[in-house]
Amino acid sequence: MILLVAITGRDCSQLIERLRTLLPEVEVQLWSECTDYSAVEFVLAWNAPADLWAKLPNLKAVSSFGAGVDSIDLTAIAPSVPVVRIVDEALASDMAEYVLTHVLAQKLRLKEYFLKQSQGAWKPKRAYAHQHVGILGYGELGKACAKRLVANGFTVSAWSNSEKQEQQVTCYHTENGLNTMLKQVDYLVCLLPLNQHTTGIIDAALLSKLQNHAVLINVARGKHVVDADLLAALDNNSLRGATLDVFAEEPLPEGHPFWSHDKITLTPHCAALSDINTVTEQIAGNVKRLLNGEWLVNLVDRTKGY
Amino acid sequence: MILLVAITGRDCSQLIERLRTLLPEVEVQLWSECTDYSAVEFVLAWNAPADLWAKLPNLKAVSSFGAGVDSIDLTAIAPSVPVVRIVDEALASDMAEYVLTHVLAQKLRLKEYFLKQSQGAWKPKRAYAHQHVGILGYGELGKACAKRLVANGFTVSAWSNSEKQEQQVTCYHTENGLNTMLKQVDYLVCLLPLNQHTTGIIDAALLSKLQNHAVLINVARGKHVVDADLLAALDNNSLRGATLDVFAEEPLPEGHPFWSHDKITLTPHCAALSDINTVTEQIAGNVKRLLNGEWLVNLVDRTKGY
Repeated sequence: MILLVAITGRDCSQLIERLRTLLPEVEVQLWSECTDYSAVEFVLAWNAPADLWAKLPNLKAVSSFGAGVDSIDLTAIAPSVPVVRIVDEALASDMAEYVLTHVLAQKLRLKEYFLKQSQGAWKPKRAYAHQHVGILGYGELGKACAKRLVANGFTVSAWSNSEKQEQQVTCYHTENGLNTMLKQVDYLVCLLPLNQHTTGIIDAALLSKLQNHAVLINVARGKHVVDADLLAALDNNSLRGATLDVFAEEPLPEGHPFWSHDKITLTPHCAALSDINTVTEQIAGNVKRLLNGEWLVNLVDRTKGY
Repeated sequence: MILLVAITGRDCSQLIERLRTLLPEVEVQLWSECTDYSAVEFVLAWNAPADLWAKLPNLKAVSSFGAGVDSIDLTAIAPSVPVVRIVDEALASDMAEYVLTHVLAQKLRLKEYFLKQSQGAWKPKRAYAHQHVGILGYGELGKACAKRLVANGFTVSAWSNSEKQEQQVTCYHTENGLNTMLKQVDYLVCLLPLNQHTTGIIDAALLSKLQNHAVLINVARGKHVVDADLLAALDNNSLRGATLDVFAEEPLPEGHPFWSHDKITLTPHCAALSDINTVTEQIAGNVKRLLNGEWLVNLVDRTKGY
């Protein structure tokens, strides 16, 4: 069998080398160098070429090269083919640390002070007193972030698709619940999965429900945000600031207005970087399960898209 | 009696107004507008004019306008005159939040990413894994910082003048203890009082004992640091970075090399800003105690300087 690495937009040589070491019995090939499509049984995918899937008559399983599966066109893969994802516990703890750090950075005006330093300006100001964080999406990552924020004295609310109950977090669902939460929060953290319901969810209508001093922190996917609506909200002072780790196109294109915006803190999709050892061990584990006729782990519910 | 406000370098009109409201029975005057030096019994001081003290034959008490008394020349005040300071519990919690935020900001490379954003450069990098914070000075503020850092998973050591024992913090004293601690820590937070023993303590010799990836965070007083030695350590890569909230001269003079240094995160003495209500109530309380012949509170041990 062939394990095909169908990842575009990055150098996969180190990844392929590790997979070959972990799976000596398997042929590991890069998609652009595939010698026999009919031998491909397992695909490791991230933004795979759109025409790839139709060429694979004997596909038996697909693994996303990440925690999300939004980079995979699930409609192009037969329903009988299991799709799995990476579940890396360190990702949740890294994400929680990123969110805590950037909520605190917004509270203590770090971007303001960096700009003031570059201008040689001495202007002490009190930190914001705001303490209420709202989280959109309350899965594994959302829960890890909420826990860390609560431990640091923040008031936390969360909105999710299904009804949830928590001791120290006020949980909302439904559109009414979302509107109730948006009115109250000082920081809005997006950790939603990307699907048809959540693409473009952070638009002018949603942003207008936030308080004017609120800050948006997007660590999910760039396509959750309507860029022009976010820029308009920042420019007309109906939003205080934004911390963005993800973008509709990555790397963020040269000249995009986010780069030079004083109210935007921009990081290059680094909130939670997969560890190559963890990732390759999980992929190799599922490839071995497939070879042994066992059930794969970390299966994706394709009806939910996560 | 006259309560003399001997604070230089800032506008005291709001402060004087509040003190007059809280102390209707007392004459509150600014040092430069004093009508009768012999009537001055209580001085509120911060960088008071050097020749002031000799003019006050009936001085009964002095209050610092802050948590520290390093702005007061204690040798110019008769030993029989009690000196008090401001003890604001919110200061300790604000300081702990500042220190946690800036340790995390250094760990997650916020300054690097701010610079990269201004250059339009997309360079994702993993956060540093470093988790060991050393605190110089383990008084009220040091303890509050240690507690917050421990709660966030950091390993914390502390060095202080006297021997101390703590459950979750490794405590050092003596010069040997300091050297042992310096070798191990990833972040060094200065929270020392400023006195003859600690002025210039952060010099080339001390910095050379730190690991090359270490970061200095100074939230105590600018005079703890020998500026030229810090710049040299940063420039020859024997120190990764520095976060400075305090400076030998404040505001930091125009053109000082700290302003434009890429490895320095500079904030304008804002880590813990006194709340004017808390400060004026404490001062008024001690003035009333003096009038009633009671013991003052928050007395300074003049032999220790804090």
